[in-house]
Amino acid sequence: MTEFLNLLSPQDAIKLLEKNLAKDFLQIVMIPTIESLGKVVARDIRSLHPLPYFPRSMVDGYAVYSSDTFGASDSLPTYLALIGEVQMGKNTNYVHALGQAFLIHTGGMLPSNSDAVIMVEDTQKVDTDEVEIRKAVAPGENVLGIGEEIGKDEVVIPAGVKMRSVEIGGLMALGIMDLAVRASPKIGIISSGDEIVQPNQELRNGQVRDVNSYLLSALVTQWGGDPIPYGIVPDNLNDLLVVAKRAHAECDVVIFTAGSSVSMRDMTAEAIKSLGKPGVLAHGVNIRPGKPTILAVCSGKPVIGLPGNPVSAYVTAKLFVAPLIRYLLGLKNEGFQPTIRAELQANVPSQAGREDWVPVKLEKFGNDWKAIPIFTKSNFIFSLVSSSGLMCIPADHTGAEAGEFVDVFLCD
Amino acid sequence: MTEFLNLLSPQDAIKLLEKNLAKDFLQIVMIPTIESLGKVVARDIRSLHPLPYFPRSMVDGYAVYSSDTFGASDSLPTYLALIGEVQMGKNTNYVHALGQAFLIHTGGMLPSNSDAVIMVEDTQKVDTDEVEIRKAVAPGENVLGIGEEIGKDEVVIPAGVKMRSVEIGGLMALGIMDLAVRASPKIGIISSGDEIVQPNQELRNGQVRDVNSYLLSALVTQWGGDPIPYGIVPDNLNDLLVVAKRAHAECDVVIFTAGSSVSMRDMTAEAIKSLGKPGVLAHGVNIRPGKPTILAVCSGKPVIGLPGNPVSAYVTAKLFVAPLIRYLLGLKNEGFQPTIRAELQANVPSQAGREDWVPVKLEKFGNDWKAIPIFTKSNFIFSLVSSSGLMCIPADHTGAEAGEFVDVFLCD
Repeated sequence: MTEFLNLLSPQDAIKLLEKNLAKDFLQIVMIPTIESLGKVVARDIRSLHPLPYFPRSMVDGYAVYSSDTFGASDSLPTYLALIGEVQMGKNTNYVHALGQAFLIHTGGMLPSNSDAVIMVEDTQKVDTDEVEIRKAVAPGENVLGIGEEIGKDEVVIPAGVKMRSVEIGGLMALGIMDLAVRASPKIGIISSGDEIVQPNQELRNGQVRDVNSYLLSALVTQWGGDPIPYGIVPDNLNDLLVVAKRAHAECDVVIFTAGSSVSMRDMTAEAIKSLGKPGVLAHGVNIRPGKPTILAVCSGKPVIGLPGNPVSAYVTAKLFVAPLIRYLLGLKNEGFQPTIRAELQANVPSQAGREDWVPVKLEKFGNDWKAIPIFTKSNFIFSLVSSSGLMCIPADHTGAEAGEFVDVFLCD
Repeated sequence: MTEFLNLLSPQDAIKLLEKNLAKDFLQIVMIPTIESLGKVVARDIRSLHPLPYFPRSMVDGYAVYSSDTFGASDSLPTYLALIGEVQMGKNTNYVHALGQAFLIHTGGMLPSNSDAVIMVEDTQKVDTDEVEIRKAVAPGENVLGIGEEIGKDEVVIPAGVKMRSVEIGGLMALGIMDLAVRASPKIGIISSGDEIVQPNQELRNGQVRDVNSYLLSALVTQWGGDPIPYGIVPDNLNDLLVVAKRAHAECDVVIFTAGSSVSMRDMTAEAIKSLGKPGVLAHGVNIRPGKPTILAVCSGKPVIGLPGNPVSAYVTAKLFVAPLIRYLLGLKNEGFQPTIRAELQANVPSQAGREDWVPVKLEKFGNDWKAIPIFTKSNFIFSLVSSSGLMCIPADHTGAEAGEFVDVFLCD
């Protein structure tokens, strides 16, 4: 056993992993913009034309020459000839001459030569062909000029951005119906252990159902990966080697989730060694739970051995698989870790020099959140089910005290 | 125009809407557990058997009678007869007699009568048939008893919980392969305006592409609804009435997103009136942007008129459509609004007595986030594209000052 001798922090372990990976090995694919939610843009996207495309009114009112309104007020109004109404959605053929006004609606196109719009509230229609102006407007007032939102050939979404609803909306405004995104990385998931059976099986004594394959598949899906399950392999090195080779050939990333006994962990390490150089980079990480995590790169592809306990597998997947997927996708805005700030309700002990992750349940009292740490005898999957999220006790702390405010990372 | 006379706060407007809705009108459907990510559980889910299903070892070591180990220490070890090894995944037929020990792995089933496991580190194998015990273990030590995680017939996931990866994992552990969830509400989306064209169309002067239908479809999908687009209706009350009636008959919720002129808003209100009682509940809400929002219930179904400007549509969808979908789905744990705390970089003015929502861009300096408010001449969709999230200035504040810490709600 070579594990646990040089324990890296999770941050250093991830850096070491990234340093050894092949660059940009995920394919770039074109997909329809309306199906791009959550995908990562692979190349800068540029506008093909300016926005607005034509000078638009920002209000309901009258298109005017601003100079015609100078000096106008409630007590000394100006009168302009009302020539017509700008039709919504139509090109305006009107050419504006001095002394004229045109009825215009919000979003309507300004007649040529109009340089401002006066709000309907600041006018009074005198007649079908005359309007009273009760206020002066400045040049450009209540008008959006061509390109005020976006110029032609401007980078509107740079590579590395994750598509949200607002990016989809923005591309629709520009008529950009397809875009280049990184293909979702295929994440092979191998479960192993003689005691593990499929979830749809009746349990016999000694058996437990496969939790991790499904837990990890759901997480990988949420993080933008494409989970490929390789089933349950018995405790047998030859069987494991065969499945590992197949998964490594077919996928971009391979995740092992093995039984938690020392022999199982050793077998996983053995299987990983068979997949290529440089092989295991970190055998053991300085966190709890999750210490026996294995991080490897084999022939350019990341390979990760997660602990078999579901809570450990969950925490380590969040700490290693999530950032790995973000890295592979080339996601630039990866830094947001939204949290809920809550008052801790009980002391949580922690060993100095090791990062601890503890499930907590959030409860609301008035406008404030309280965080109740969940302690169980073992790391039960149902301790996560009853939790709202995880709190972190950094390596340089020796626990957290009741009454402290902590940041809770919500469970995915 | 009856709007803007009694402006409700968003919180009061949502309450009024919920009070007028038919109860539990979404169907309950059975779906496979592995496809349930993000769905809301419709009925309490109970365990069919306890977890663990059999007494399990928590460590690698030897199953013992604890009384056989009392008094054992490094200096005065005890010796036990090593009878055999517990096979992983198998029922154990061993019956433990005094003075005996059995090799056991983490997760292995305890022989009957064993009441503790001693860790391998605290032992020394003397021979193939004898083991030295160097420490005492208490009854139950390193053992998980039947039902210590979950009892039989226990409610493991109550109705109203949104399925996360951890709930999927938990149900897998129990062999629960299907569950009852609320069907996604069908959300009909009607866009209207003579100037609006399909996004794939070349623009002519006077035209703008439909942004809101696609923005709202993406948001509705993320929030657990099923968006049904009804296309773009011209500025014509009869056409709007026909489409509105069809959407109201076919969907659970109808959303209008109209042009922003006063006449368009009036036409939307007119169409909503035609859909049934009680009709419009709030015409105008005390927020910015989004004041002209219309909230209605027609024959038991919610109907919402969103402003035509994309930023206003976005903010009001977050404030009204998101909680509405949560309410319809019966989501109980709805209160989490994860945020990022950041230092505001510029003064943001706001009118007292009105809730303001302002797009901000987050930037990281060292370990701290700074929030840069995004001010534009109009509420451009691209002001959302360049933003990380929204900050809220509550109605009882007159703005926020540079240097203040604000909570930023990330954009969906």
